[in-house]
Amino acid sequence: MSTGKHFVTDPKTLVKDSLCGLAIANPHLAFDEQQKVTFTKDLALLRKKQATLFCGGGSGHEPAHAGFVGHGMLTAAVSGHVFASPTSSQVLSCLRRVYSEEHGTLVVIKNYTGDVLNFGRAVERFKSECVNHGKPLPKVATVVVDDDVGVVNPNDDDEGGVGRRGLAGTVLVYKIAGARAASGGTLDQVKADAEYVVSHTFTIGCALNAASVPGQGMPRSLKDNEIEIGMGIHNEPGFETKELQPANVLVPGLVDHIINSDQFKNVCSGTGRVLLLVNNLGATSNLEMGLVTKLAAEAVQARGFTLERTFSGTYMTGLAMPGVSISLLVLPEDEEKRNKLLTLVDQPAYCSGWINYPHVEDAGSTDDSAKGPVVQIKPASDASWEKAISEAYNKVVVEEPEVTHLDQLMGDGDCGQVLLSGATAIHEASKATQLPLNDPPAALARISSIVEDAMGGTSGIIYCLFLDGLAQQLRALNVSDNNSLTPKIWGKAMVEALDTLFQYTTARAGHRTLIDALQPFAQTLADSGDLNAALGAAIKGANATAKMQPKRGRAVYVQQKESAADAGAVGLVAVLKGIVASFQ
Amino acid sequence: MSTGKHFVTDPKTLVKDSLCGLAIANPHLAFDEQQKVTFTKDLALLRKKQATLFCGGGSGHEPAHAGFVGHGMLTAAVSGHVFASPTSSQVLSCLRRVYSEEHGTLVVIKNYTGDVLNFGRAVERFKSECVNHGKPLPKVATVVVDDDVGVVNPNDDDEGGVGRRGLAGTVLVYKIAGARAASGGTLDQVKADAEYVVSHTFTIGCALNAASVPGQGMPRSLKDNEIEIGMGIHNEPGFETKELQPANVLVPGLVDHIINSDQFKNVCSGTGRVLLLVNNLGATSNLEMGLVTKLAAEAVQARGFTLERTFSGTYMTGLAMPGVSISLLVLPEDEEKRNKLLTLVDQPAYCSGWINYPHVEDAGSTDDSAKGPVVQIKPASDASWEKAISEAYNKVVVEEPEVTHLDQLMGDGDCGQVLLSGATAIHEASKATQLPLNDPPAALARISSIVEDAMGGTSGIIYCLFLDGLAQQLRALNVSDNNSLTPKIWGKAMVEALDTLFQYTTARAGHRTLIDALQPFAQTLADSGDLNAALGAAIKGANATAKMQPKRGRAVYVQQKESAADAGAVGLVAVLKGIVASFQ
Repeated sequence: MSTGKHFVTDPKTLVKDSLCGLAIANPHLAFDEQQKVTFTKDLALLRKKQATLFCGGGSGHEPAHAGFVGHGMLTAAVSGHVFASPTSSQVLSCLRRVYSEEHGTLVVIKNYTGDVLNFGRAVERFKSECVNHGKPLPKVATVVVDDDVGVVNPNDDDEGGVGRRGLAGTVLVYKIAGARAASGGTLDQVKADAEYVVSHTFTIGCALNAASVPGQGMPRSLKDNEIEIGMGIHNEPGFETKELQPANVLVPGLVDHIINSDQFKNVCSGTGRVLLLVNNLGATSNLEMGLVTKLAAEAVQARGFTLERTFSGTYMTGLAMPGVSISLLVLPEDEEKRNKLLTLVDQPAYCSGWINYPHVEDAGSTDDSAKGPVVQIKPASDASWEKAISEAYNKVVVEEPEVTHLDQLMGDGDCGQVLLSGATAIHEASKATQLPLNDPPAALARISSIVEDAMGGTSGIIYCLFLDGLAQQLRALNVSDNNSLTPKIWGKAMVEALDTLFQYTTARAGHRTLIDALQPFAQTLADSGDLNAALGAAIKGANATAKMQPKRGRAVYVQQKESAADAGAVGLVAVLKGIVASFQ
Repeated sequence: MSTGKHFVTDPKTLVKDSLCGLAIANPHLAFDEQQKVTFTKDLALLRKKQATLFCGGGSGHEPAHAGFVGHGMLTAAVSGHVFASPTSSQVLSCLRRVYSEEHGTLVVIKNYTGDVLNFGRAVERFKSECVNHGKPLPKVATVVVDDDVGVVNPNDDDEGGVGRRGLAGTVLVYKIAGARAASGGTLDQVKADAEYVVSHTFTIGCALNAASVPGQGMPRSLKDNEIEIGMGIHNEPGFETKELQPANVLVPGLVDHIINSDQFKNVCSGTGRVLLLVNNLGATSNLEMGLVTKLAAEAVQARGFTLERTFSGTYMTGLAMPGVSISLLVLPEDEEKRNKLLTLVDQPAYCSGWINYPHVEDAGSTDDSAKGPVVQIKPASDASWEKAISEAYNKVVVEEPEVTHLDQLMGDGDCGQVLLSGATAIHEASKATQLPLNDPPAALARISSIVEDAMGGTSGIIYCLFLDGLAQQLRALNVSDNNSLTPKIWGKAMVEALDTLFQYTTARAGHRTLIDALQPFAQTLADSGDLNAALGAAIKGANATAKMQPKRGRAVYVQQKESAADAGAVGLVAVLKGIVASFQ
């Protein structure tokens, strides 16, 4: 059971402070702290140009409502305390501020008793105020949004019941009515569009738990295996608490609940064209949101509907509620009407809460380029490579138990086996004559790929990067056959390859890794061209790791138990021993 | 302790499915399921036009990375499993797909061992691949982002240590480098901008708890009063676990941690101009995010810095982690350079993860209009109004205990007191001659305001709405003095006022509310003009509520204990009794 920890100074000032923060991060917004009204800074100009519209309600549903204030959506929003309607005086103040004498104003109300009464009273007070001051009756229209089909209400009788709640579908009302107003629609047109959306949008929510309220904590808690279907955005209990199902069962079930509701059936017979909105109720990870979106879109299509648009995001929350809601907007059957509505949907809105679709030309797949050039490996035998690989493999087999033992002392014990996997895979490929051994850079590139597949993990990729660098150096030196390769050239190429490796790891000599053996080997070979001297330097370097503090790799986090050499360095020495021995 | 409930079908396919969902809701995106590469659909055209750039890394940080793919930000993103680097083969596939032969490609890497090695190896393989196929060395640049100043690392030595992690500041690298690439910058310019951001951005995270991983659950849990400072985006422990402080102490402390870090001091001496980015780590409510943003912005300014831009949102998460991170980007001191950088910051990006600032003309405050017209109340005495108010008040005093008793049976017991508060306030105003009693509509409007302040709640606003409607009706009927008011006109106005009320409540006669008394009173008075007959009808209506099932109001949720009348209806009857008696 969560105790409801929060980032909060004082629950009483949280809403005001939060809206101040919104205005700081959204410089197009102005904020009236007194009345908790957020409005677009060019309101005084805007209301001369177009019909205006606003919404509001209790706080705790962010980005709703103030996060949708901006051109193309709401002109303003008025906020109450957490989960409580603003007072009618606050709403009246907002209406006065927003009202367009020339074009009129739409008030969008979510269907909760407190909101309906307070917004309603504000509208009535505003009318009285205008008339009492000798002005004509103001052009104010209201719509009440009740998209919830997750209320199974015992009072939902023929007379209307207490009604269905306004949920995330409300945001589609803002979007479409806001776009219509911004494109010069009259108040009647704006209202008609809003009413279309209200009567054709259906939402169902579900949650894995209630949300903690700052200053109050958790009102209740679901069990560890439970989900609640129909939970409201104020922690109102849903109509069903049941065992949590896998998402591929749960999400289609939610879609079914919508399309099987009487409300949906009343406006959509069988199939049709729909818009889908998947809403994060606050604390669902965006990773999961992507899955829910995919499953909802697939479920809608599998049931014979044509999905015209899909939106997914955080639109109307219940504080940090771990839940989602799914909304379907049934689009007009008439193509012209449908296209008009979709034009409004697609019109950009300029606020922080709405995600505009960018328009991008589909230039087709680039899958061919992603596959890369076909690598033509021309296998070829080479006695000295094959002998070196074979002897290196044999040495690794012999020394694997010691490497494993050392790694058990200071790591997770897999270093020996991982090295053996790599050596075995290369040895197998060599025995089967699968390596282009007459082309050293190509051979090294192929070996690098085999190492990646066989070893994996950090040590594998360190080997790979070194081998890649080595192949690049040989290519750069124009070494294309084995004849021109002297020990000194190998040494110089290895020193350069270490630089490639060092671009991607901060491990250096002295950090108790295989670098402590590899770098002395490369440097000595480059300087002297003497394989045995290089091997001696590598062995000396590996032994010296016994006295080093671990600085890189897993050993950093392990308590040093005894003075022992680094497993990675000792493993590399086994490989080098085998290679050097093959040339004796 | 959370058990880690999730919306998930199969943790193994979660990442792929989630990215499919992202592409469904973002039609500008294409998705290569095999390699988990998300790219902009016009990639084939884009890479002919501009330098391209991509990022990637483990999943679970959404919207990072794929949510930032779009014009003006990333060209593509490559995703590994949850909290695990993509393989070098995946990254190579992404690089091949994105690479612009003409303009080159920037690879943005977050500084984690796995990412650095796998992205690095992909770059090296790509170079080898190009060279091996006779092409020139490709124009690929890399930057490694390490903005975390929340690592207090014992290995953070002169040689670089394992380094600081890449956190939300990485998104600023996408934004600025992406804008530069989109505006035609060369690869060198794009890389230089990216490197500027990398070396001048500093982030500190904190969390109220670790995040549950789908399929794995919670790795660990903080205590109910604890917060962890410096927690990583993969649940890595922070450097300090301490008692949760109020946000106004905590947030400035985080800002101090950044500006006191050696990394910050190295590039910013004392004060300067900065950009602030406040990031939701996944499960912080947006309400709290607003507060944190305000506090962070204020703290930055209070410490003498000039805040040039503030961003607040969900940029880089640790699944559904209840935490935030704060990033500061130190802007160039040189004005020209600074303005160039800010131009890149302000340039719109077209992806779901980034919130563009809308540009809006500041048309100044509209505070005057929000205040509304000054209501000039011209108090005036009127004997019959004063008598009616006085007698109604007396009746309410007498009947309050009975109303309270009835409400205790079927409600929360406050109905009597609330009604008495309203009656008392009106009576006081009348006695003090504060009401414009010679102007009935104005008097009713004033009484309505007094009722709202004194009563509050749902019953108060129902009275208010009725009184507002009544005032409007009298105004519409041109009733501006008491002489023209007959009982019949009152009745007709009341019937109309009920229609106003009914716009905002679905309560109707028969629902066991005060409507059961009010409507018969109004109708009878309108029909007959007989006050006593109207009162009789009201009493009859109130009595009849005893046998009704509650349909509205709080009583809906209460078990009916005995056959008793509705408190609200009985309360209203008390008021009506007083008024009618005053005319006898």
